[in-house]
Amino acid sequence: MADAEIGLIGLGVMGSNLALNIAEKGNRIAVFNRTASKTHEFHQDAGPLRDRIVPCDTIEALAAAIRPPRPVIIMVQAGAAVDEQIAHLRGVLSANDIMIDAGNANFRDTMRRFGELEGSGLTFIGMGVSGGEEGARHGPSIMVGGAEASWKRVEKVLTAIAAKYEGEPCAAWLGPDGAGHFVKTIHNGIEYADMQMIAEIYGILRDGLGMAPKEIGQVFARWNEGRLDSYLIEITARVLEADDPETGKPMVDMILDRAGQKGTGKWSVIEAQQLGVPATTIEAAVAARVLSSLKDERVAAQAVYGGGVAPFPGGRDEVLADLELALFAGKVAAYAQGFAVMAEASRAFGWNLPLPTIAKIWRAGCIIRSQFLGTLAKAFSGGPVANLLMTPAFVQMMQEANPALRRIVARSAEAGLPVPALSSALGYFDSYRLGRGTSNLIQAQRDFFGAHGFERIDSSGAHHGPWGSGAA
Amino acid sequence: MADAEIGLIGLGVMGSNLALNIAEKGNRIAVFNRTASKTHEFHQDAGPLRDRIVPCDTIEALAAAIRPPRPVIIMVQAGAAVDEQIAHLRGVLSANDIMIDAGNANFRDTMRRFGELEGSGLTFIGMGVSGGEEGARHGPSIMVGGAEASWKRVEKVLTAIAAKYEGEPCAAWLGPDGAGHFVKTIHNGIEYADMQMIAEIYGILRDGLGMAPKEIGQVFARWNEGRLDSYLIEITARVLEADDPETGKPMVDMILDRAGQKGTGKWSVIEAQQLGVPATTIEAAVAARVLSSLKDERVAAQAVYGGGVAPFPGGRDEVLADLELALFAGKVAAYAQGFAVMAEASRAFGWNLPLPTIAKIWRAGCIIRSQFLGTLAKAFSGGPVANLLMTPAFVQMMQEANPALRRIVARSAEAGLPVPALSSALGYFDSYRLGRGTSNLIQAQRDFFGAHGFERIDSSGAHHGPWGSGAA
Repeated sequence: MADAEIGLIGLGVMGSNLALNIAEKGNRIAVFNRTASKTHEFHQDAGPLRDRIVPCDTIEALAAAIRPPRPVIIMVQAGAAVDEQIAHLRGVLSANDIMIDAGNANFRDTMRRFGELEGSGLTFIGMGVSGGEEGARHGPSIMVGGAEASWKRVEKVLTAIAAKYEGEPCAAWLGPDGAGHFVKTIHNGIEYADMQMIAEIYGILRDGLGMAPKEIGQVFARWNEGRLDSYLIEITARVLEADDPETGKPMVDMILDRAGQKGTGKWSVIEAQQLGVPATTIEAAVAARVLSSLKDERVAAQAVYGGGVAPFPGGRDEVLADLELALFAGKVAAYAQGFAVMAEASRAFGWNLPLPTIAKIWRAGCIIRSQFLGTLAKAFSGGPVANLLMTPAFVQMMQEANPALRRIVARSAEAGLPVPALSSALGYFDSYRLGRGTSNLIQAQRDFFGAHGFERIDSSGAHHGPWGSGAA
Repeated sequence: MADAEIGLIGLGVMGSNLALNIAEKGNRIAVFNRTASKTHEFHQDAGPLRDRIVPCDTIEALAAAIRPPRPVIIMVQAGAAVDEQIAHLRGVLSANDIMIDAGNANFRDTMRRFGELEGSGLTFIGMGVSGGEEGARHGPSIMVGGAEASWKRVEKVLTAIAAKYEGEPCAAWLGPDGAGHFVKTIHNGIEYADMQMIAEIYGILRDGLGMAPKEIGQVFARWNEGRLDSYLIEITARVLEADDPETGKPMVDMILDRAGQKGTGKWSVIEAQQLGVPATTIEAAVAARVLSSLKDERVAAQAVYGGGVAPFPGGRDEVLADLELALFAGKVAAYAQGFAVMAEASRAFGWNLPLPTIAKIWRAGCIIRSQFLGTLAKAFSGGPVANLLMTPAFVQMMQEANPALRRIVARSAEAGLPVPALSSALGYFDSYRLGRGTSNLIQAQRDFFGAHGFERIDSSGAHHGPWGSGAA
């Protein structure tokens, strides 16, 4: 009996939670997992939502269980598994059915899939979902790419399951084909930067001020009541305050300092490069994860060079006040970069990305949700701006916050504490606000060795220096 | 009459100079350019080398003029033009003839071309050439990728035209297929970093110490006699000392601070990301070029934020001494990154890249040639090392130089002078030598919101924190 409103393939943690979320909002949902026992277990364990879930042992059964035109969410591992599911679905779905890839796809794969499905009569949506397990279960942030007409057909169910920010659903259609997955990738790049800058501040508190995890947690908890109010600061406080049940020691002290990375951080950097947009703070964050993974090399290097952390100069209260502002200023630079990458992608791919809407649907549900994004959404809603740093609200905040970032970067450098993301944020800000930079010298060098030519400050066109062609 | 030893297609500046270099070393060379008049002009203007040059109006004539098996150098714009030439040559060349792409190809294109030519009987070489116009004319650094047997057949002419370092030719076979073009790409990435760090130091001297171009030029000239001895420092001194013939003012002051970039800088960053190797100093240098191109935005930002350069703290002599060491330390970090990228590429692509040989063939001919590379070649010749920073010679030099880098980064941050590449170098060093980093916090966060799990310091396997699954 084809009475389900929607289908879902892939009952991993994210898929299961999304299915429960959909059912909870009053929808009947058909579900399928490669391992049939998992499908039935999921159904059994669904409690009061059981009646709205239709467990299916085959993709064919799944298709038969959904009322046409059928929306089917694919929530499997990004990559080849998605292509397999699409190939299988092509054989069982009919014209006007909609396949929705809700995984962390590389947007270039999404673009390819749109191309491959062209003329097939089937409709495709590439959908970014952020919020982790908990978001999937109770309200994620949902970034949709595809035809606007496809969005209209699934808008009701997607806005129903999305997080709400003061009543507004954190789900939106952002543009054609790869737009949704692209925005999700940049979301994750920004998330890398946010997390790395928090980790750098934690490092200063731990190694520079010699504070214990619980004390540091209290600092983050206090910051969470001010301008840094955000999910990541909140959970930072909570993990720092947690004890390890096994040893009774602070949990964070028992965790190995070796961080993994998935594809999205790397992709966001690669796409920024492809688009020619500086994203140095995101790059620094991705690099920091890779360096963290070289634990053995780092231990060996410390044996040779010394960990070399000098006491952090300045009184504690003064330093704490600086750290809060420095983290805020670093955040501004990272978001400026991320939004600049999206603005350029919008131009390059003809997506017409609605930047204020993106900021709005990130205000709740997703990992980087924060008060900050509300301010950012307002800053962008006045019309196109060259850079977040040039919006009046942020100019004022950066004028206040940048001196603290400056002092923290300077003192960390002197103390020997690595702050690669924070210092890249300062470098970005200081480069951006320098009307007369230093690349006149670079142009002179390039003309000297390669006759590349340069522009003059007093006349247009290409010129050469008096060093003669191939002067060396 | 097929009596030329070699052919060359593409008589732009680089191609013309390479052809003259080849002829000068006693070889007879057939040349072809799309515009026939250019071919004949080149021949006419070749002076005493005229007799060794065979101008050809068609590719067919070029092929007929070379003694089989024919080596043909292709020196046209990277990209589609290379594919066109290859397609044309396939129709006129015979088995065992060798096509040599000497342009700045993306090594992935080179890999593709090797694949496409497989089974055709034709041989292909991807060859990186560095040294600008002057290098091409009198001795470039030559990085060869392809079958070793192909190299053997062109080794004589290539070593003859290459730069010599204390008698040793700066040309070598580095590995199969894309190895040569890959190494050239990383060479250019390092070149970006070198140039950017020099520009940052120039900025401190100009804006922080208020020095005039000629004074700054003298500083670089003096540094060129010490540990920084290199082509780029030498030409930096020369361009800073040059006057503009039009206005009589220092030339460098009349050049617009808007730098261009070609593909190789960007490619080196993208490949570092693909390989998962931190290359933050190269990334910062590429980003700085992009930021330089946003001249209008920068001028607008300065109007809002102020250029904000405070006097650089410290006495001039002390600061100059620090700057020399800081630039050196930054260079070590940049080269450590570049060589780490090549080491990983070597593993990933099965190239078995000879790192000491690469350093050796960069000691002369190429843009980054320097005394430094001699030290580096020695440091690597003792066998595989984890990182340049861990070789005894560089440990000693970095122990001496890193405090100066630290002070310069700190003071630049305080003064408001952008030093993105130098500070990323410090961030790399300080992260690398920190045995106990801060990504334990990142792992805790990731486990909190995504149940990603973490490793513990006291037992193996994946663990979860006491915050419960999807704790938010």
